[in-house]
Amino acid sequence: MIRRSPQAVMIDLAGVLHTGDQALPGAVEALARLRRGGLPLRFLTNTTRSPTATVVAKLRQMGFDLHPGEVQTAVSATRQLVEMRGLKPHYLVHPDISGEIGPSSAEPDCVVLGDAGAYFTYDALNTVFRLLMQGLPLLAMARNRYFMEEDGLSLDMGAYVAGLEYSAGSKAEIIGKPARPFFETALADLGVAAEDTVLIGDDLADDIGGAQSAGIAGILVRTGKFRPEDEQHQTIRANLVVDDFAAAVATLSD
Amino acid sequence: MIRRSPQAVMIDLAGVLHTGDQALPGAVEALARLRRGGLPLRFLTNTTRSPTATVVAKLRQMGFDLHPGEVQTAVSATRQLVEMRGLKPHYLVHPDISGEIGPSSAEPDCVVLGDAGAYFTYDALNTVFRLLMQGLPLLAMARNRYFMEEDGLSLDMGAYVAGLEYSAGSKAEIIGKPARPFFETALADLGVAAEDTVLIGDDLADDIGGAQSAGIAGILVRTGKFRPEDEQHQTIRANLVVDDFAAAVATLSD
Repeated sequence: MIRRSPQAVMIDLAGVLHTGDQALPGAVEALARLRRGGLPLRFLTNTTRSPTATVVAKLRQMGFDLHPGEVQTAVSATRQLVEMRGLKPHYLVHPDISGEIGPSSAEPDCVVLGDAGAYFTYDALNTVFRLLMQGLPLLAMARNRYFMEEDGLSLDMGAYVAGLEYSAGSKAEIIGKPARPFFETALADLGVAAEDTVLIGDDLADDIGGAQSAGIAGILVRTGKFRPEDEQHQTIRANLVVDDFAAAVATLSD
Repeated sequence: MIRRSPQAVMIDLAGVLHTGDQALPGAVEALARLRRGGLPLRFLTNTTRSPTATVVAKLRQMGFDLHPGEVQTAVSATRQLVEMRGLKPHYLVHPDISGEIGPSSAEPDCVVLGDAGAYFTYDALNTVFRLLMQGLPLLAMARNRYFMEEDGLSLDMGAYVAGLEYSAGSKAEIIGKPARPFFETALADLGVAAEDTVLIGDDLADDIGGAQSAGIAGILVRTGKFRPEDEQHQTIRANLVVDDFAAAVATLSD
């Protein structure tokens, strides 16, 4: 199901390489092994509670060998998209990423949602709701349902996206995974064709389904937010399911 | 479209009789006029940020002639349902209604959501999310999309219900309007048949659609959360649309 000789590898971060501040068992060594093969890598993450620099620093502290230029986050994709389209967003995002994303416009022409976490207050959501009711379009960095923390699965920003869509009668445009353009940007940066690329992720819908929509094969790992029912999903089938990141790397170098 | 001689009248509160702390123009007098006709009345509300006693006291202060025994709230319906089924809920509700609803169980067998307003914090929602992921059923006092405040439409608890449903893959059971049992309880209390009853409300889906599902004719008023597109809805058609509560009362006594 997987090409034995991909020309590039895309790797999801949370739930694949680490959970919270803990590297997953064998992941640091597996990444080092993959590095020795010399393939170009792209790390793709929908995590939008932290700036890209913090994400990279945290992973390096855990022992992972990766560089800022190899990391594509839903935050960086948002910055590019806002610039490209000349948008003036009202942002509801975590204050930690305000520096990376810039301030809200006083006269916004759209709403951009990130994972504000504890900053998803009623008042902040009601402000967004009222802008949506005025007809402003809603963009969301992600709509993940949940993510794995050290003490268990936790509610992700998708709940707030779905809730605002319901109340305002809107439909959000998603910027990060599983949006096809997010994967296509990564492919263009890597300079490889989709069929020569493989993605390793723990999220069946957003990693695997998203990659496949861009023509990229997806290896699902049984770590992070993986749940047994993911192997029986009605519409999305991973090209391969393996126990963890080390096992995924092993299938690529066999 | 409306029987000229109903035997009972059901009346929604917010958006029909008042907005916030302000009686709507002509509403106090119209209720007094309706009272003189002698028909039994039931006031039905999905408002769950305040205890029933507070709701009644506030309306009386505005000049409305109504009595606690005539008011059926989603909170009172919840209390009855929990008792009837012997449930042990984890409650995520506004602290002001805790006294009416009782404390959360330490070993819950379900989750009950009210309109917690500003108390819908990330941590509170994540606690609920984790209980749902353990398989506990979700009950919600309401799933209204929005409601009218003095300064405009505001986000209602339906956003949180829809968000939790999305992330946890659950489907909430709704206790208040538009649930058919909520209207049937009111009919039983009134002792009248559905076809002899008429409801006056400002919410096309939850008031009118809900009433009609129980066989009750619905008069939509163009106040509160009413929006012009409500008159062109694809599936729900009010039996009658009038400008306000006074006009609705006039059609009943003509």
